[in-house]
Amino acid sequence: MANKTALIVSAHSADFVWRCGGAIALHASLGYDVTVVCLSYGERGESAKLWKKEGMTLETVKTERRREAENAAKALNVHDIEFFDLGDYPLEMTRAAKDRLVDVMRKVQPSFMMTHSKYDPYNTDHMYVSQWTLECRAIAQAWGHNPGEKVLGAPQVYLFEPHQTEQMDWKPDTFLDITPVWDNKWAAIQCMEGQEHLWHYYENVAQNRANHFARNSGGQSGGRAAKYAEGFQSIYPRTVDEL
Amino acid sequence: MANKTALIVSAHSADFVWRCGGAIALHASLGYDVTVVCLSYGERGESAKLWKKEGMTLETVKTERRREAENAAKALNVHDIEFFDLGDYPLEMTRAAKDRLVDVMRKVQPSFMMTHSKYDPYNTDHMYVSQWTLECRAIAQAWGHNPGEKVLGAPQVYLFEPHQTEQMDWKPDTFLDITPVWDNKWAAIQCMEGQEHLWHYYENVAQNRANHFARNSGGQSGGRAAKYAEGFQSIYPRTVDEL
Amino acid sequence: MANKTALIVSAHSADFVWRCGGAIALHASLGYDVTVVCLSYGERGESAKLWKKEGMTLETVKTERRREAENAAKALNVHDIEFFDLGDYPLEMTRAAKDRLVDVMRKVQPSFMMTHSKYDPYNTDHMYVSQWTLECRAIAQAWGHNPGEKVLGAPQVYLFEPHQTEQMDWKPDTFLDITPVWDNKWAAIQCMEGQEHLWHYYENVAQNRANHFARNSGGQSGGRAAKYAEGFQSIYPRTVDEL
Amino acid sequence: MANKTALIVSAHSADFVWRCGGAIALHASLGYDVTVVCLSYGERGESAKLWKKEGMTLETVKTERRREAENAAKALNVHDIEFFDLGDYPLEMTRAAKDRLVDVMRKVQPSFMMTHSKYDPYNTDHMYVSQWTLECRAIAQAWGHNPGEKVLGAPQVYLFEPHQTEQMDWKPDTFLDITPVWDNKWAAIQCMEGQEHLWHYYENVAQNRANHFARNSGGQSGGRAAKYAEGFQSIYPRTVDEL
Amino acid sequence: MANKTALIVSAHSADFVWRCGGAIALHASLGYDVTVVCLSYGERGESAKLWKKEGMTLETVKTERRREAENAAKALNVHDIEFFDLGDYPLEMTRAAKDRLVDVMRKVQPSFMMTHSKYDPYNTDHMYVSQWTLECRAIAQAWGHNPGEKVLGAPQVYLFEPHQTEQMDWKPDTFLDITPVWDNKWAAIQCMEGQEHLWHYYENVAQNRANHFARNSGGQSGGRAAKYAEGFQSIYPRTVDEL
Amino acid sequence: MANKTALIVSAHSADFVWRCGGAIALHASLGYDVTVVCLSYGERGESAKLWKKEGMTLETVKTERRREAENAAKALNVHDIEFFDLGDYPLEMTRAAKDRLVDVMRKVQPSFMMTHSKYDPYNTDHMYVSQWTLECRAIAQAWGHNPGEKVLGAPQVYLFEPHQTEQMDWKPDTFLDITPVWDNKWAAIQCMEGQEHLWHYYENVAQNRANHFARNSGGQSGGRAAKYAEGFQSIYPRTVDEL
Repeated sequence: MANKTALIVSAHSADFVWRCGGAIALHASLGYDVTVVCLSYGERGESAKLWKKEGMTLETVKTERRREAENAAKALNVHDIEFFDLGDYPLEMTRAAKDRLVDVMRKVQPSFMMTHSKYDPYNTDHMYVSQWTLECRAIAQAWGHNPGEKVLGAPQVYLFEPHQTEQMDWKPDTFLDITPVWDNKWAAIQCMEGQEHLWHYYENVAQNRANHFARNSGGQSGGRAAKYAEGFQSIYPRTVDEL
Repeated sequence: MANKTALIVSAHSADFVWRCGGAIALHASLGYDVTVVCLSYGERGESAKLWKKEGMTLETVKTERRREAENAAKALNVHDIEFFDLGDYPLEMTRAAKDRLVDVMRKVQPSFMMTHSKYDPYNTDHMYVSQWTLECRAIAQAWGHNPGEKVLGAPQVYLFEPHQTEQMDWKPDTFLDITPVWDNKWAAIQCMEGQEHLWHYYENVAQNRANHFARNSGGQSGGRAAKYAEGFQSIYPRTVDEL
Repeated sequence: MANKTALIVSAHSADFVWRCGGAIALHASLGYDVTVVCLSYGERGESAKLWKKEGMTLETVKTERRREAENAAKALNVHDIEFFDLGDYPLEMTRAAKDRLVDVMRKVQPSFMMTHSKYDPYNTDHMYVSQWTLECRAIAQAWGHNPGEKVLGAPQVYLFEPHQTEQMDWKPDTFLDITPVWDNKWAAIQCMEGQEHLWHYYENVAQNRANHFARNSGGQSGGRAAKYAEGFQSIYPRTVDEL
Repeated sequence: MANKTALIVSAHSADFVWRCGGAIALHASLGYDVTVVCLSYGERGESAKLWKKEGMTLETVKTERRREAENAAKALNVHDIEFFDLGDYPLEMTRAAKDRLVDVMRKVQPSFMMTHSKYDPYNTDHMYVSQWTLECRAIAQAWGHNPGEKVLGAPQVYLFEPHQTEQMDWKPDTFLDITPVWDNKWAAIQCMEGQEHLWHYYENVAQNRANHFARNSGGQSGGRAAKYAEGFQSIYPRTVDEL
Repeated sequence: MANKTALIVSAHSADFVWRCGGAIALHASLGYDVTVVCLSYGERGESAKLWKKEGMTLETVKTERRREAENAAKALNVHDIEFFDLGDYPLEMTRAAKDRLVDVMRKVQPSFMMTHSKYDPYNTDHMYVSQWTLECRAIAQAWGHNPGEKVLGAPQVYLFEPHQTEQMDWKPDTFLDITPVWDNKWAAIQCMEGQEHLWHYYENVAQNRANHFARNSGGQSGGRAAKYAEGFQSIYPRTVDEL
Repeated sequence: MANKTALIVSAHSADFVWRCGGAIALHASLGYDVTVVCLSYGERGESAKLWKKEGMTLETVKTERRREAENAAKALNVHDIEFFDLGDYPLEMTRAAKDRLVDVMRKVQPSFMMTHSKYDPYNTDHMYVSQWTLECRAIAQAWGHNPGEKVLGAPQVYLFEPHQTEQMDWKPDTFLDITPVWDNKWAAIQCMEGQEHLWHYYENVAQNRANHFARNSGGQSGGRAAKYAEGFQSIYPRTVDEL
């Protein structure tokens, strides 16, 4: 029987590391095949350190960013990583690019998907990608889109943690204990050589989310200890047989 | 080993039937001991049909409402039902009443609790009870409240479905399939003899929530068929080991 | 046949003038009997000018404020004005005071009611009164409250315009043309001798709301000219037979 | 004198039936000429049943969906129905298509318009159409757009009921009694042969909205009985001469 | 040393006058070089008075609107005003236009920027411009966009006051005393010959915002008197060394 | 000339340390006299570690908590700390307690005040205190409350950072660089012997808020480096003479 699967839609090539690297590695360890789509390399807007070097070119930046992302993907045991190379700042998604993302969604048939927060006044690429992901999800569900293909079901879409959560109107409703795979995430984080200023920041985030994990699993009477966690906001209601 | 438990905090004696009767019966069938607290009988504000009878008295209304609630509780296989008799319209919760509710919370040690929506401009009793339930949950967690007792953990609080959901700013994030216990809920609903005008209304609600269950479990490609469902809004984030 | 009626619940004795004086006078001119309840005189918190006078006492302030309010009520053709004298800053509403307001609601049987905005971080009296009005409305609808009395129906509750609307999260959904009765409102405003600094402010408000009236009744192609208007936010949905 | 008019902007060819079929038939019975614009047939995304048939083609689906919509329009006494055939999932609105919709708005000069909710994470076509309708309304009001034409006034835009209202942040502020024309709506619903699974769902919706109609027109003391109703959310404030 | 600078992004050629004319003139008086970008002339949608004249052409309207805007800019001591001439109703911003706005942002290196509210159901041009301004701000910060140029820092973006603030979900968090430059603003307002119906409206706005200035600077005990003020909503948090 | 002043209203005796210890120490270093009011000791609900010891009594817990708070206050150079000893879980504020807080507000005449977030479903004490602080601020401004006393002006109220910010609907709009006084805050944190599990958590918070400080002061081009910062949400608009 085929593995379970998950799909991450990342605007820039490093987003999947900071924001859901733990979820990726954890589900990989649970037997999921996790696919990551990087819509751009973040080559223009998230590579300041590279651009400060003499004689830098767009191609070199993209190559470098791709290398980092592939290394990180390996560290996280990503099953497949695809680069759409759509450009960034602004990231523009043509109909063809949407169709390509729909193809991936149908091919992967994910149990869940992940993408960016709905709002981001610092980084409009992020919020556009969030909306396009919902749009592509609807197309992938349409029986009349490439009739004959297996349509997409109704996978949850989790919005992973943005930078400055409160400014993005992002509110986590789910905390995931990533303690067992923290080493993987930390290794992946260190692959992001150009953004070393964010390493410690996201280590702090993971530790503090673990505090939230404990608080919500047991209050003052204890709660389950977790050393590292990640938070996610769900777009759709859950359907359950027991609360 | 002791059964799992759940606790329902109902402002008036019929609320637990319309709003979470299915959840009660389902979890009873799963082996949970479900306790229901009715803070009032709804004797003044939700018993119009009785008051239209000649010579009606408050005591008669309360007796009648209690009888109906006890019958409904039986139909739902409620483990225990307690009546606080605090009065209604307005329902006022003294410190003593709060302490009593805290006692129940600690005694029951519920896996989850349920109560009313945060806002209700039609029925302020409902929204006050929602807030008091959170207040009592915090007290029940306090180590210095009746030191020596087992403090409460961090059970989820689900807000059950109010009447006119959109006016109450209530948004369900969880749908529960209650098809297996619909007969119990329908029987309990029919115990509410004084509010026959609501029977069919809540049958419709259950059917349409089943449609939402299917839609969210599988989109256009199918989804799991459910005939009856209930929706709930969570106050706190979930803590999980797999998404 | 009896006149139509309306009921205004005003935290302090001047609120009904600034915030809905036009609505009062207009409906009086349409044959409504409009009752105003002033829960307090605003004697402590809204009478700075009086308190700056030598030797001022609470009783004198209350007497003065009452006189102003009665004069304003006359100017607006108010049918009845009642002073509950509950004190202000903070205005505290006991169960007895709630019962008294319920009595008024049942006696008046208003077609609509008006009160303060839901939120007001400058003036907590206002926001508490808004909530208590909803609470009393629910009690007044309860068949078991003073059985035998005629219960209240389901009158709309309009929230009238607060000071600094945006800070109060107040959003008008209804604009009322008060041009025909502006002279009455202006006369009533001038009865508020202690708050002369607000006269011109609320004249500006009325003129600008008239601009909104025109804008919403006809866009750039015209709209109905209005010179003075008031805005209101509805709590409940309307029920109609034609849109 | 010309009839009053109304304009419905429907993303897919069945939306106008489920969501405002009653409003259409009722206003037709009141003498309004109601025009419906179907921007697409919903041929790709809302025709699963047809696509499951062997050998289905896009043209056949569109023909079938158009036939159903025309039959439904007849059942509702629609004055005019126009199909823009813009495609669906995703529905893309070019400048030319916007101009065409502006032309319709100006030709119809509606007393009110209706369209989709502002947000819909299940169906991005819906939320885009909602925004485009507002955009086209603004263009239609512009004196410099096709100068010489009669510009549009300021018709209300009602957002009709989406599927899963709470997930769409949709809150009705107006309930319309459609009891007198329920037979028309039910007949129109049954024209939607490919979506039989939704017939009973929207019958339930209409019955429960009638409960809300009664509740808001009269509270516990009665309220006007209605058997079927529809709910709508207004975008703009109303302008009135009596509350 | 170079002057401080500010940048105003105005959808139509009059917006900067009504909405932030005071802020412009005040900062000019403080030594700022203020640049205004008018993305369109508002020639189609905000020039009704001109279009009502016989034989009017688009070019004439644009010329007239430009003349008015230039006069107003002079009255406000604007340092530079640029007209992008992108058309209006709808205002469409191509990638080239975005790049041009990015160029201006980088050239000006503003201490702060100003633009429209996030939401405007009356005027979709406004809300699109608000979003595009954030998008261009992000591009202007990207080291890989035109490498070698000085990138933009992190200037605050203030949303200036829209018409009908409550309908736009606009909430001011900053009031600016413009009393010293009111004469400039009033002169600029009078340059808008085609929109005389708005002159007095915005005079009222300025007076009432001055009341809010006083209220927030000193409560009932006084507050600083201001005769005219403007309000702004900030997008980003402030960073300070003293509260 | 008298020093500037500030007033912190803390529900439990440790809140002022975690949530605004940096702001206190920084303003003390700037010459402010900072007063802290601890409404309770948090003796029942926030002293789990103490209660786990054999033979613990309420008085001992209170003594211990007071000692910790006084030590922390010293470390932060607090000017004055007052303990109202109102009890906690639930913290109940009588009219007399409100009057006492009003007295402090008037005595201190603070330039700004600080208190808890508006919403907190984990800790209702916090949200009630937030509301009561606004209520007391309004009373303190009332000329008729203890006539003759100097009334309060209109100090800003900053809501300091709660635990699990997103669950509390708290959004910071102001970041304060506390790097120069971090040693004081860290020393004060270590005075909270009973809550050692939170020390590192709030160190992480301070570091990550410093990242936000840098991000908002300069974007990708730099921003001012800060090692530790605190975030605050303002209740009222600012009034300024330059943006």
